[in-house]
Amino acid sequence: MTTEVKASPEERLLEAAAQLSYREGVGVGVQALCQAAGVSKRSLYQLFDSKDELLAASLERGAPAYTAWLLPAADDGGSPRERILHVFDRMETEAVAPEFQGCRYLTVQIELKSPEHPASRVARGVKQALAEFFRAEVERGGARDPDLLARQLMVVFDGASARAGVGAEDLTGLVSPTVGALLDAEGVQ
Amino acid sequence: MTTEVKASPEERLLEAAAQLSYREGVGVGVQALCQAAGVSKRSLYQLFDSKDELLAASLERGAPAYTAWLLPAADDGGSPRERILHVFDRMETEAVAPEFQGCRYLTVQIELKSPEHPASRVARGVKQALAEFFRAEVERGGARDPDLLARQLMVVFDGASARAGVGAEDLTGLVSPTVGALLDAEGVQ
Repeated sequence: MTTEVKASPEERLLEAAAQLSYREGVGVGVQALCQAAGVSKRSLYQLFDSKDELLAASLERGAPAYTAWLLPAADDGGSPRERILHVFDRMETEAVAPEFQGCRYLTVQIELKSPEHPASRVARGVKQALAEFFRAEVERGGARDPDLLARQLMVVFDGASARAGVGAEDLTGLVSPTVGALLDAEGVQ
Repeated sequence: MTTEVKASPEERLLEAAAQLSYREGVGVGVQALCQAAGVSKRSLYQLFDSKDELLAASLERGAPAYTAWLLPAADDGGSPRERILHVFDRMETEAVAPEFQGCRYLTVQIELKSPEHPASRVARGVKQALAEFFRAEVERGGARDPDLLARQLMVVFDGASARAGVGAEDLTGLVSPTVGALLDAEGVQ
């Protein structure tokens, strides 16, 4: 006897939007989304004002789990350097998977071209939280210029994951020495 | 009296594809391309096998001028460090323009999701030429690990331009210190 609860139409749409928009891009059609979710167009528009809102909601739904997976636990007792490298280890783990096509919170912004799109806003918030994590850690680690170093870490995160996402990089031996060199240059032990 | 020669339908299509695919993404429709170029669909398909081929041809057409603009002259007499920083100065100049939405040769690969797409191949070649430029310069500059440093420079290039492209960065005071720290760490004067 199974007690599995069947996902609701809303959950199926959110899941379809997350998967298809990542795999095929934000231009994925309403018809394809409805078909993947097993939901009628009518139901989609009863649940969401627009495809844009569905896309934003799908990103928002996945964000807490992503951030919890990416960042170290608040009380893990690690040094700033260890906690920063934890994030990059996670990114690298994700980025070498065959289905990886770049950080979804960056690619969605690149594809949408509009900072005002509801999904761009959600994506920006996720990246902003990461930037704030880096900023707090490098300050705690005594960086001479914490603003600069936090921005540098975001550049490495987005550059490395984008290059891995398009297959230009396999990241072997790249990320940790790069982050290490930037931390060293700013005096973070 | 003007001697201006009117652009051919082929040139107008190539220009429209370059502009619209950058501004709106690779999903821009054939109809929009034809309208912008003032060319019929029939003419488009007489000149190009497909929209994919038109997109690839438009990237290929713009690549030599872009690379010539981005890289220093072969005989400029600059040090490796100066020649590398020249590239990043150019990138920064481009990236702070209001219409900038990221390096088109990276974004097209991100959007297309397929390394086998003809336009992805063209874009990859342009980025590869930049990676080879960095590789040659850092070797000439005595980098301890020229492969690593060249890859790091590509990460900074793509990360900084992608973040500027989505409006997450204005690049003020960021690129040159980052490149400098990585060159220093590898012993490039």
